[in-house]
Amino acid sequence: MLDVCLLGTSGMMPLPGRFLTSLMLRYNGSSLLIDCGEGTQVSIRMKGYSVHSIDNICFTHYHGDHISGLPGLLLSMGNSDRTKPVNLIGPKGLTRVVNALRVIAPELPFELKFIEFDEPSVHLSLNGYEIDAFKVNHNVTCYGYTVNIPRQGRFNAQAAQELNIPVIMWKKLQKGEEILLDDGRLITPDKVMGAQRKGLKLTYCTDTRPVRSLTENAAGSDLLICEGMYGEGEDDKAKLNKHMTFKEAALTAKEAGVQELWLTHYSPSLVHPEDFAYVAKEIFPNTHVAKDRRTVELKFEEL
Amino acid sequence: MLDVCLLGTSGMMPLPGRFLTSLMLRYNGSSLLIDCGEGTQVSIRMKGYSVHSIDNICFTHYHGDHISGLPGLLLSMGNSDRTKPVNLIGPKGLTRVVNALRVIAPELPFELKFIEFDEPSVHLSLNGYEIDAFKVNHNVTCYGYTVNIPRQGRFNAQAAQELNIPVIMWKKLQKGEEILLDDGRLITPDKVMGAQRKGLKLTYCTDTRPVRSLTENAAGSDLLICEGMYGEGEDDKAKLNKHMTFKEAALTAKEAGVQELWLTHYSPSLVHPEDFAYVAKEIFPNTHVAKDRRTVELKFEEL
Repeated sequence: MLDVCLLGTSGMMPLPGRFLTSLMLRYNGSSLLIDCGEGTQVSIRMKGYSVHSIDNICFTHYHGDHISGLPGLLLSMGNSDRTKPVNLIGPKGLTRVVNALRVIAPELPFELKFIEFDEPSVHLSLNGYEIDAFKVNHNVTCYGYTVNIPRQGRFNAQAAQELNIPVIMWKKLQKGEEILLDDGRLITPDKVMGAQRKGLKLTYCTDTRPVRSLTENAAGSDLLICEGMYGEGEDDKAKLNKHMTFKEAALTAKEAGVQELWLTHYSPSLVHPEDFAYVAKEIFPNTHVAKDRRTVELKFEEL
Repeated sequence: MLDVCLLGTSGMMPLPGRFLTSLMLRYNGSSLLIDCGEGTQVSIRMKGYSVHSIDNICFTHYHGDHISGLPGLLLSMGNSDRTKPVNLIGPKGLTRVVNALRVIAPELPFELKFIEFDEPSVHLSLNGYEIDAFKVNHNVTCYGYTVNIPRQGRFNAQAAQELNIPVIMWKKLQKGEEILLDDGRLITPDKVMGAQRKGLKLTYCTDTRPVRSLTENAAGSDLLICEGMYGEGEDDKAKLNKHMTFKEAALTAKEAGVQELWLTHYSPSLVHPEDFAYVAKEIFPNTHVAKDRRTVELKFEEL
């Protein structure tokens, strides 16, 4: 299962009760953040989560509202006695931006490992997360992220018994390793593992206009978290500032065939985003106009 | 009168309900900040204050918890259509630190004017605020600030009438300007203004050990806002980390003969600072263990 918490839902500037947009995923003891604006670490504390286990921090782009909370978060992670390296992931320029911000966090007890890219899309495997970053359409280079948690096939105990594989060796096969038996036989995992089962898929995207790369990458997601900067009647502003309206986010969710849509990254002028929920729900009924710290536990299908 | 609001009271890291220490003064249409950690701009909004009128931002030092909120605040000030220059005031290194942080706030519609110093003390007159910065004793160069609002003497209308000064010219004299009358007489303000009256004095100091420069500069303040990193029983930690206990802050207030003491900059481990109020109050009864957004209006004496 994958714990999902949208730590903040504001765009541009943090507001009382609405921190800047940031997503925290927790899976198998390793946490992953996407974006880290001002207030991110406060929201993590409000949830009672630990900053110690954040192994990966992804950035969509480097506008202040998506990264201003990073120096403070890194300092707090240092104060939590973390010593394991932390991966920072984002478009080209990451090292330059983060090293500049570190003027106020120069000494950390852990290493920062930078993963930068400028390709249209890139795939990363980190701590059990299968991550796809894909370029979207904002006024600076910006990426969306899809995170997959794969689920292996079911272990076939009967097949293992028929092959006379000692029970003590089963775990290695379940972990995907080959084993060499005393009788000289080499057993590969496919002999005892069923076909890969449906995993979990989540897509997070902000800031962008509606764009094909988003629809394609979000296809079939269990959850799409998508910017909705403007409620209704501000189509021109959305086009000008390269953001999306609630309607455009809902159309994207529908076209991508996702299970559920959460809106985020509201304009500060959108004081009551929930007033415009109907606009999105008309197009994509399973829309949630998310508030800070909206949380869900995505579970593997019972199979 | 001087509006005083302690926007945040946390040290080291922001917590739920406790943003990083920052002070906002509002006087005569011009606001002044001292320190600007993560959450400062949220707290300003919670009070319903405007970021537009912040003309001066002073820094005690450049540890992250005292400046991490600056890039976001500057961006929000830019979004509020401010075009007037903003003064940034602090110890040597200010330009370097702020320009590095501006990697995420590169374009602002107003100029930043830097005022750096490394003398033991320095006096500045800015927007009606008479500011004294004085070096204290932390593990990096750090300054405390005293802010005086001077109050001129009372205008003596009888004297003005006896000197046959036309009423229309009184305002200039009240503003401290000389006037040349049609009959050739030059009138200086001292002819019609009484002696300067008691003004308002506020001192803000964090992070430091107890130090003579603080006691001397705080002397006679209407309000001393002083760090109290540790409640009780952590004297060694206070010495080691160059901070103060509640007791030390109270002793400073007593020795300086201030009217009132507010404590701030609590360690994150000090979950309920109010539990230790008694420690300070035994020494200095008019102590307040401040919470975020504690506010007071300091008024000139009725005279």
